[in-house]
Amino acid sequence: SPGFLVRSLATQKTPASLFASLDTFADRHVGPDDTEASYMLKKLGYESMEAFVADTVPPKIRVAPESVSNATIPSLTESELHRRARELAETNKLHKSYIGMGYHNAVVPPVILRNILESPAWYTPYTPYQPEIAQGRLESLVNYQTMIMSMTSMDIANASLLDEATAAAEAMVLSFVSSGQKKRTFFVDQGVLPQTLAVLQTRAKGFGIHLVIGDALTGLKDDALRSEICGVLVQYPDLNGSIKDYAELADSVHSSGALLIAATDLLALTMLKPPGEWGADVVVGNSARFGVPAGYGGPHGAFFACTDKLKRKMPGRLIGRSKDVQGKPAYRLALQTREQHIRREKATSNICTSQALLANMAAMYAVYHGPVGLKRIAQKVHSLTQLLGFSIARFGYKTTNPEFFDTLTIDVTGPVPSSEAVHAAALKAGVNLRKIDDKHVGVTLDESVSPQDIITLINVFGSAAGAKAVSISDLTPVEALAIPASLQRTSKFLPHQVFNTHHSETEMLRYIYHLQSKDLGLVHSMIPLGSCTMKLNSTSSMIPLTWPEFANVHPFAPKDQVKGYLEMIKELQDDLCKITGFAACSLQPNSGAAGEYTGLSVIRAYHESRGEGHRNICLIPVSAHGTNPASAAMAGLKVVAIKTLPDGSLDLVDLKEKAEKHKDNLAAFMITYPSTFGVFEAGVQDACQIIHDNGGQVYLDGANLNAQVGVTNPATCGGDVCHLNLHKTFAIPHGGGGPGVGPICVAEHLAPFLPTHPIVPVGGEKAINAVAAAQYGSASICLISWAYIKMLGGNGLSEASKVALLNANYMAHRLKDHYILRYKNVNGRVAHELLIDLAEFDKAAGLKVNDFAKRLQDYGFHPPTCSWPISTCMLIEPTESESLEEIDRFCDAMIQIRKEAEDIITGKQPKDNNLLKNAPHPISVMTLSDAEWNRPYSRHVAAYPTKWLEEKKFWPTVSRIDDAYGDLHLICDCPTVEEIASEH
Amino acid sequence: SPGFLVRSLATQKTPASLFASLDTFADRHVGPDDTEASYMLKKLGYESMEAFVADTVPPKIRVAPESVSNATIPSLTESELHRRARELAETNKLHKSYIGMGYHNAVVPPVILRNILESPAWYTPYTPYQPEIAQGRLESLVNYQTMIMSMTSMDIANASLLDEATAAAEAMVLSFVSSGQKKRTFFVDQGVLPQTLAVLQTRAKGFGIHLVIGDALTGLKDDALRSEICGVLVQYPDLNGSIKDYAELADSVHSSGALLIAATDLLALTMLKPPGEWGADVVVGNSARFGVPAGYGGPHGAFFACTDKLKRKMPGRLIGRSKDVQGKPAYRLALQTREQHIRREKATSNICTSQALLANMAAMYAVYHGPVGLKRIAQKVHSLTQLLGFSIARFGYKTTNPEFFDTLTIDVTGPVPSSEAVHAAALKAGVNLRKIDDKHVGVTLDESVSPQDIITLINVFGSAAGAKAVSISDLTPVEALAIPASLQRTSKFLPHQVFNTHHSETEMLRYIYHLQSKDLGLVHSMIPLGSCTMKLNSTSSMIPLTWPEFANVHPFAPKDQVKGYLEMIKELQDDLCKITGFAACSLQPNSGAAGEYTGLSVIRAYHESRGEGHRNICLIPVSAHGTNPASAAMAGLKVVAIKTLPDGSLDLVDLKEKAEKHKDNLAAFMITYPSTFGVFEAGVQDACQIIHDNGGQVYLDGANLNAQVGVTNPATCGGDVCHLNLHKTFAIPHGGGGPGVGPICVAEHLAPFLPTHPIVPVGGEKAINAVAAAQYGSASICLISWAYIKMLGGNGLSEASKVALLNANYMAHRLKDHYILRYKNVNGRVAHELLIDLAEFDKAAGLKVNDFAKRLQDYGFHPPTCSWPISTCMLIEPTESESLEEIDRFCDAMIQIRKEAEDIITGKQPKDNNLLKNAPHPISVMTLSDAEWNRPYSRHVAAYPTKWLEEKKFWPTVSRIDDAYGDLHLICDCPTVEEIASEH
Ligand SMILES: Cc1ncc(COP(=O)(O)O)c(C=O)c1O
Ligand SMILES: Cc1ncc(COP(=O)(O)O)c(C=O)c1O
Ligand SMILES: O=C([O-])O
Repeated sequence: SPGFLVRSLATQKTPASLFASLDTFADRHVGPDDTEASYMLKKLGYESMEAFVADTVPPKIRVAPESVSNATIPSLTESELHRRARELAETNKLHKSYIGMGYHNAVVPPVILRNILESPAWYTPYTPYQPEIAQGRLESLVNYQTMIMSMTSMDIANASLLDEATAAAEAMVLSFVSSGQKKRTFFVDQGVLPQTLAVLQTRAKGFGIHLVIGDALTGLKDDALRSEICGVLVQYPDLNGSIKDYAELADSVHSSGALLIAATDLLALTMLKPPGEWGADVVVGNSARFGVPAGYGGPHGAFFACTDKLKRKMPGRLIGRSKDVQGKPAYRLALQTREQHIRREKATSNICTSQALLANMAAMYAVYHGPVGLKRIAQKVHSLTQLLGFSIARFGYKTTNPEFFDTLTIDVTGPVPSSEAVHAAALKAGVNLRKIDDKHVGVTLDESVSPQDIITLINVFGSAAGAKAVSISDLTPVEALAIPASLQRTSKFLPHQVFNTHHSETEMLRYIYHLQSKDLGLVHSMIPLGSCTMKLNSTSSMIPLTWPEFANVHPFAPKDQVKGYLEMIKELQDDLCKITGFAACSLQPNSGAAGEYTGLSVIRAYHESRGEGHRNICLIPVSAHGTNPASAAMAGLKVVAIKTLPDGSLDLVDLKEKAEKHKDNLAAFMITYPSTFGVFEAGVQDACQIIHDNGGQVYLDGANLNAQVGVTNPATCGGDVCHLNLHKTFAIPHGGGGPGVGPICVAEHLAPFLPTHPIVPVGGEKAINAVAAAQYGSASICLISWAYIKMLGGNGLSEASKVALLNANYMAHRLKDHYILRYKNVNGRVAHELLIDLAEFDKAAGLKVNDFAKRLQDYGFHPPTCSWPISTCMLIEPTESESLEEIDRFCDAMIQIRKEAEDIITGKQPKDNNLLKNAPHPISVMTLSDAEWNRPYSRHVAAYPTKWLEEKKFWPTVSRIDDAYGDLHLICDCPTVEEIASEH
Repeated sequence: SPGFLVRSLATQKTPASLFASLDTFADRHVGPDDTEASYMLKKLGYESMEAFVADTVPPKIRVAPESVSNATIPSLTESELHRRARELAETNKLHKSYIGMGYHNAVVPPVILRNILESPAWYTPYTPYQPEIAQGRLESLVNYQTMIMSMTSMDIANASLLDEATAAAEAMVLSFVSSGQKKRTFFVDQGVLPQTLAVLQTRAKGFGIHLVIGDALTGLKDDALRSEICGVLVQYPDLNGSIKDYAELADSVHSSGALLIAATDLLALTMLKPPGEWGADVVVGNSARFGVPAGYGGPHGAFFACTDKLKRKMPGRLIGRSKDVQGKPAYRLALQTREQHIRREKATSNICTSQALLANMAAMYAVYHGPVGLKRIAQKVHSLTQLLGFSIARFGYKTTNPEFFDTLTIDVTGPVPSSEAVHAAALKAGVNLRKIDDKHVGVTLDESVSPQDIITLINVFGSAAGAKAVSISDLTPVEALAIPASLQRTSKFLPHQVFNTHHSETEMLRYIYHLQSKDLGLVHSMIPLGSCTMKLNSTSSMIPLTWPEFANVHPFAPKDQVKGYLEMIKELQDDLCKITGFAACSLQPNSGAAGEYTGLSVIRAYHESRGEGHRNICLIPVSAHGTNPASAAMAGLKVVAIKTLPDGSLDLVDLKEKAEKHKDNLAAFMITYPSTFGVFEAGVQDACQIIHDNGGQVYLDGANLNAQVGVTNPATCGGDVCHLNLHKTFAIPHGGGGPGVGPICVAEHLAPFLPTHPIVPVGGEKAINAVAAAQYGSASICLISWAYIKMLGGNGLSEASKVALLNANYMAHRLKDHYILRYKNVNGRVAHELLIDLAEFDKAAGLKVNDFAKRLQDYGFHPPTCSWPISTCMLIEPTESESLEEIDRFCDAMIQIRKEAEDIITGKQPKDNNLLKNAPHPISVMTLSDAEWNRPYSRHVAAYPTKWLEEKKFWPTVSRIDDAYGDLHLICDCPTVEEIASEH
C-alpha cells in the first residue's frame, strides 16, 4: 500500500488570501487531501477529477456547477459557524414553558449529557446489525426495554419508535391487523394529544381506517359501534391532566375482540397504576421526560409495549438475549422477520431508523436515578402541582381536573375576564402556559421546576387577578395525593440490578464507559456500510445542539421566542432545495422511511386534488430498500415489482409494460438513485418520462444523495419528490440506530400538499395532515445538517460528493482482481458504493457472506452491508471522510481474507473449522486452553492476520451469536435482583 | 463479598422538604450510601459514624462540627451550581485581549476540546507511573517532547513544566548547578517578561543567586561580569516584540563557561531561526498558544528543552522509549533518578505534578495542524501584524520595533497626546491593548484574529487620532516579512509521521481514541494511589471550565472585566480558610510542590521581618514526600531529618533534640498530617509546640487533607501554614500528570507575606515576590474546586472525609488477615489510607512490591502507591468516591493475589516463572503460540483470575517494561518519516 509515503507528503490547500480563515471545514471533513486524490485518480487512469466524474455520472443528468457552489451556498469556517450559531441561539428567547402536551423540560444528568449525548463513542455507531461489536448499546437498549416493560407493566417492549404520535399510529395499525384487517373503525378518546390525533388521521387514511373521536368512557356503550372497532386509544393521564379509570373499558373492549391502547407518561407511572395492570394491550408514549432535552420537538425516543401475544406483530426493533457459540450470553436484534427489510410491503411497519441514542439516554437516566430516585422526582412534581393548584385557588381560579399528576386545567373565569390576562402576565414573567381557550389555561410541571419557579407561577396567576405577590414562606405543602386511591400504583418497578447499582457518578460513568468499550463506532475505524453513508460527524456541528437556547425549547413555544430556530430551519430548507433542485421542503418526517411515507402521501393528495384519488399502484424495483414497499403499503398503495437487468440497471421494458398496464391507476414509481446496486443508470430520465407519460409521479429515494450533491440532482433525474436521510448525506450521526431526519423535497406542483400540524401550522395550502408529533420533527438535530452544509458551502458539498465517488471507485479498483465486482457502468465506474458478489465462495467451499463479515470484525472493521440488495453480496460505501490510508487498510483486509478463503477452497484449512467460520474471535477465545482451542490455526493468525492489528485493533466481545436460539427463547429484559440472587 | 445484596437494597436519603432540590451532589459524589456505610461500620464494630471517627481521629485535635457545616459553607445542588456559575460567567466581560506578554487567544480545535479537555478518559488518569496501563498518554507526551525539540531545535525536551516563568527559574538554577554551584550571578535581559523576572527574583533568593538586569547585547561586554555569571536569559522575540540576533552573545557566554537560556514562542519558531540553531543551551516557553485556552492565566503547559549534555540535570518528567520483556517498544518515565522522589533535597528541582493534560492538548494541536498548517497560521498572524502596523502608520503612529513576529510596540506621541486616548478608544471598541506607558501601547495578535478584528483595531487607533473609519477594502496586504533575513527559519520542523497523518477530523478523532484506549483512568476502575486521592471529578464541576467567559480571559485583563473570576476566587479562598482554620490564602502556586516552596518562602520572609533571616534549618521526617526536602532546598533551607518510631509515629524525642540543637537557626518543621504512614498521630500538637518553643514555624503538607475536612484542621493541629493539593482533596482531575493547584493557607501572622505579582498586585502588604507567572496561578481550574466545595457544602465536605476514613478502615479490615498492615493507631484504626508491608514475600519467595503491583494490573486495577514512603510497602487510598462494591472487588483481587503468592512460596509455582513475575499479561501475550506460552499456568488463569474479569476487564497493552534498558538507550522523540521509511 502506498498510503504511508503519500500521506507523509500531504499537501494542504494554500489559503486564497491573507484574510481567508484557516479553519476551513472541507479540509477536515474530506479524508484524502489533494495529493492523495491525485494518486487515486492516477490509479484509475484519470488526469483530473472532472474527467473521472464525467466517466462516472451520465452527462445527461449533470447539473451546472453553479447550482451548488459557494455562490449559492457560501461557506463558513468552523469558527464563523460557531459565531453564526451563537447569533441564532441568542435570537431564541429562553422563556420557561409549562405547556406540557407531551413535552417537558428535562433535567439531563450531566454525566449522561457529556458522556452519551456529547460523546462520539455513543453517537457515531450504526444500528447494531453486527451484534458481536455492539454489545454495549444492545445491553443499554435492553435496559430501555426492561424499563418500559416495568413502568408500564407490559410483557414486552421494543427498543424505541420515532415519537409518541407515530407510535400511537403504529398501535392503531396493529389493532387493525389484529382484527384480521377486518374492522376498520378505531376509537380515539377526546383526551388524546392533538398532535397524536392528527398523525392518526393521516395514517388512518392509507389503511382505510375510520376514526371515531369521543369520550371513551361514555361513547362506547353502543354495542354496534363496539363491534366495529378494532381498537381504542386513551391518554393516561389525558391532555387536560385528568386521570381516569379505564379498567371497565378494557373489559368491554376486550369482550368485543378489540385492543385497548394507552398513551402514557413514564414519570406518572411511578405513582399511577400502570396500564398493564388495568388491561391495556398496547402502551405507547414519549420517554424524553427521562433526561432528553425538549429540543423544539425532538428527537425523542418513543416507547411501544404490548402483551406477549402481540409480540410478533410489534413494529420496530426488539433486542433479545441469546448466546454465542461459546455459550456466553449475548444480545442481538430479535424477531427480525417482522421487519421491513425482510417482509417488505407485508412488514408490521416501515420503521428502520428509530431513536436508539435517545432511548439509551432515557435508559441511563433510569439507571442513574433508580426506582427510589424516580419516585421521589415524581412525588415532588406532583406535590408542587398540588401546591400550585391550591395556591391559585385562593385567587379564585378553579382547577377543572381534581385528579391529576402534573397538569392542571384551570378555569380562569372567576378572577379574570379572559385567559388573555393570565397569558399576558405569564409573558411578562418570562413563562409560557398552555393556551386552551378564553376560559381555560393549562399548566404542566416537571422535574426542572424549582421553588422559585412555583412562586413565579403563582404570582403570574396572582398578578392577573390583581392579588399581592406571595413568597415561599406563604406556602403550605399539601399532604394528600390528588390521585384516586384505586389508581395509585402499588406494584414495584425497576427491581433489576442495573437500576439499583450505578447511583454514584463514578459508578455511572464507569458503566457508560464499560458499555461503550464493547461497541465499534466511527471513533475506531471505517464503517463501510453501503447505503448508510457513515461519514464524519464533526464536533463543530455537534456543539450547538446542547446549548440551552436550542436544547430547552418547547415545540409549541410562541413563534417570536424561536426566531433563531425558524431562521435555521428556513436556511436548511432552502439549501436542501438548492441541492435537490426542488421547490419546497418539509423537515417534519423524522426518519428516511417516514419521509417515504410522507412523500407518497403527498403524491396521493396531489392525485386526489386532481380528482384522481383512485390512483393506487406503486411501481418499485425488486432491488429497492425494504422501507420502500412498506411505506407504499402504509400509504395505501399497491406494490408492483419492476425487474432489473443482468447489468444491474432497471428493466425499462418491464417498467414501460407495467406502467402502461396500470396506466389508469398508476400513482407512483419509487426509485433509488444511484441505484441500490451502486451505479448511476443512464436511463433514469427515460424511466421517469415513462411514469409521467402514464400519469404517475416519481418518488426518488434519496438515501444515496451523497453521490449526487453538486453533480446531479433528483429534479434533473426526473423525480417529483425525494426524501433525504440527513443522518446519511448530511452528517447527522446515526446514534447507534437513530435519531434520523428524513425531510422531503418536492417539485412546485407538490408543494401545496406538504404536511401541516394541528398546533403550529406549517406546510402547504392544501397540506396533508401531520406525519410526526412535532411540526418540524426532530428539529434540534437539524442544526447538525445545517452546520454541515454551511461549513462545506456549495463548493465543499460538491467536492465531498466527488471524493465519495472517487473513494468508492478506488476501492473497486483495488478489490476487482480479488472479488467479483457485480455491477459497473459502461466506463467501468461504480457510483459512491460498490457491490461485490461472494456467491462463488459458497459454491466452492460453503462460505457465506456472513463468514466474510464476521472475519472482517477480526480485522477491526465494521462489515459492509450484507446480503442486501442481493443476498450473496456485500455493499461497500467508504464516503468522502475516509482517508486513503484507511481505505487501503480495509482493502488489505479484504484481500487477506480472500487469501484465507483460498486456503479453505484448496483444502489447506477444513471447511467447518477455519478462520472464517469461527470468526469473530473475541479475547475470551484467545484465552482458551490448548485443548479447547482445537483449531487448525494459531491464535496469532486468528487475532493479528495483518501487522497493523498488533498496534491497533478493536476486539469483538462475544463469539458469533446464535440467532435462531434467541428467537426461540425470546428474552428481552434484564434479570431482576431476585433472579440473579437465586442463580447465586 | 456482600456488596451485591447490600447495593440492591440501596437507600437514598429522603429529601428534607418538598422544596428541597433532588440533585444533591453529595449523594452522587460519595460512593457508599447509608446502608452500605452502616454495613461497613458494623463490620468494624461500630454503631455509628461518630463512634468510628472518635476512635480514628485523636480527640484533642477534633474541631467543632459547625466549623465546616452548611451554616458556614451552604450547599448548592448541581443545577443551582450551574446557575451560580452562569451568573459569575456573565459577570466577566468578554473583551478581546491583544495584551500579549506571553498569553494569547487560543483557537482550540473542537475535536481536541471535546475529546481531550472535556473527556474524562483523558482528564482522570494519574501520572503515568504504571506505564503498562498508560501507553496512550505516554505516546502523546513523547509527541509533545518531539514537537518541542523540533520547534526549538534542541536535543531533548521534557514532558512539561508548570509555566514559563518557573521554567525560566528552573533554567536559572540549572545554570547555577552547571557552574558547580560556584557562579552566583545570573543575567536577565530587560526584554524578558516581567512575570518571569519576578519569579526569577523570588527563586534567586533561595539559591543566593544575584540577578543582573540589563541589555544582554550590550551589557555583557565587561569581562569581569561575564566571568561571574552562570547564565543569561533572553526572550525571543522579546517583551516588546523585537527580534534580536543572539548568536554572538551565545559564543561569548559559552566562552566564559556560562549557559544561554532563551524564553521563546512556539508559533514564532515556525518562521524564526530556532534558538538551538544560534546556540541556546536551554529553551523554555509556554505552549498554550497551541490550542490551550488562556483561562485567566492557566493552566498551561510550559516547555523546557536543552542540549544533550545537560539532560541529566534537566528538571521535570521525561518520557523515553524502551521495550517490554517481549521486546515490544514501550514508553515510560525516563531518568527518574534525577527526580525529587528519589533524590530528595539533592534533586534537580521539586517538580512533581506538571501539566500533562495541557501538554497533550498542545501536542494534539501540532498533530492536527502539522508543519504546513502551523506555518500557515504563523504567516497569517505575522502578515496581519504587518498590516496593522502599516495601516496605523498612516494615522501617524510609529512602530518602535521594525522587526517583529506578532507584537508591535507603538509610539503614540505623533497623533495623540497620551496613550490614554488609545486605551479609551479600545475600551469603547471592547478590546484590551497592552498598557506600557504614557507614550507607548502594545498590541499582540494571534490565531483568533479575524479580518473584522483587524478593522476594529485599526479603527481604535484611527478614532483616537480623529481619523475616519476604514473598511476591509481600504487595506493592502504587505508582502515582505518583518523578520530579518538572517533570523528567518530555513530548517524543516515536525517531519515525523505523527505530525503528517492525522489531519482530517476523522483521523484525529481515531488517533485520540486509539491512545485513550490504552490508558486506565477513573472511567475504568478505582485508582487507589495512596497520597494521591483519586476521587470523582464530577461533570458538573467540569462544565463551566470551557465556557468562553472563563476560558477566553487574559490574566492581565482589567479588573472590572473579571469580576466573576474575582468573586469565585474570593469565595474559594474564604472556604479554604474555613476548612484549614487559617486566616488567609494564596492560589498562586500551581502545584503542591510549588505550594511547599511558597509556604517555606513565606516562613523565611516572616523570620526576616523579625530580624531572624539567618534561620535556615528545616526539620523533615524521613517519611516525608520527596518534594518536601526538595522544596526546602529551593527555599535555601538546610534539611535535617527526623526519625520515626517503630509504630510509625514521629520520634518526638528526636524532634525535640534536633529542635533544641538547632534552636538558634531553626526555621521550620515540615510535617504531613495524617502522616505518610496513614495514621493520625496523637502527638502532632506536641510536635508543633516543640517547634514553636524553639523559634520555628510549622509547615503542614496538606496532601492528606482529605482525611481532615470538618474533622480536624491544620491550624488546630498546630501548623502555621499548609498547602493543599486542589487536585487531590478538592477534586481537580489529575489530567494524567497535571494540571494541579497548590494554594497555601496561612495563619494571621504570615498573611502579610503571601506572594504578590508584578502586573496585578495580590497577596500581603509585605509580600514575597511572585512564585508563578500568573497572579492566581492556574485560575481557570480553581472553578472545579470552587464547584466541588459549593456543591458538597460544609456538611457534605465533612461527610466526604468521614467516608474516606471509613472506606480505608474497611479495606484495612478486609486485608488485615492476608497482609501485614504496617501501622494503625491505638484503637486499631488507620486514617484515609493504609500501608501494607510486602517484605515477607521477598524473603519467602523473592516477590517484590512491583510483582504485586503488576499483577494487580491483570485484575484491571491501577496499583496503589508503591515503595513509598517505605520501600517494601504499598500505600492504599480508596477515597470517599469508591463504592463498597468496588472496594470489595479490589480487596478480592488483593486476597486472590495473596493466594497466588502462596503457591509460589510453597513451590506449587516456580519462583522465576509465575503469575506475579510475568505480570502484567497483555493480550499480545495471550495470543502467543503454545510453544511460546511456556508457562506453568493457563492463559485463562493469567487473564481471568476472578469471575468478574470475564465481564469487565481493562487490559494492559504491553508487558513489563525494561527501565534500565530505556535509561541506557535514551530515546525521547518519535521517529521521522525518513527514519520509518528506512526501516521499511
Ligand atoms: C435506500 C434506503 N432507503 C430508505 C432508507 C430508510 O431510512 P431510515 O432508516 O432513516 O428510515 C434506507 C436506510 O438505510 C436506505 O438505505
Ligand atoms: C504528601 C505529598 N506532598 C506533596 C506532594 C506534591 O504535590 P504536587 O504533585 O502537586 O507537586 C504530593 C504529591 O503527590 C504528596 O503526596
Ligand atoms: O438500514 C438499512 O437497511 O440500511
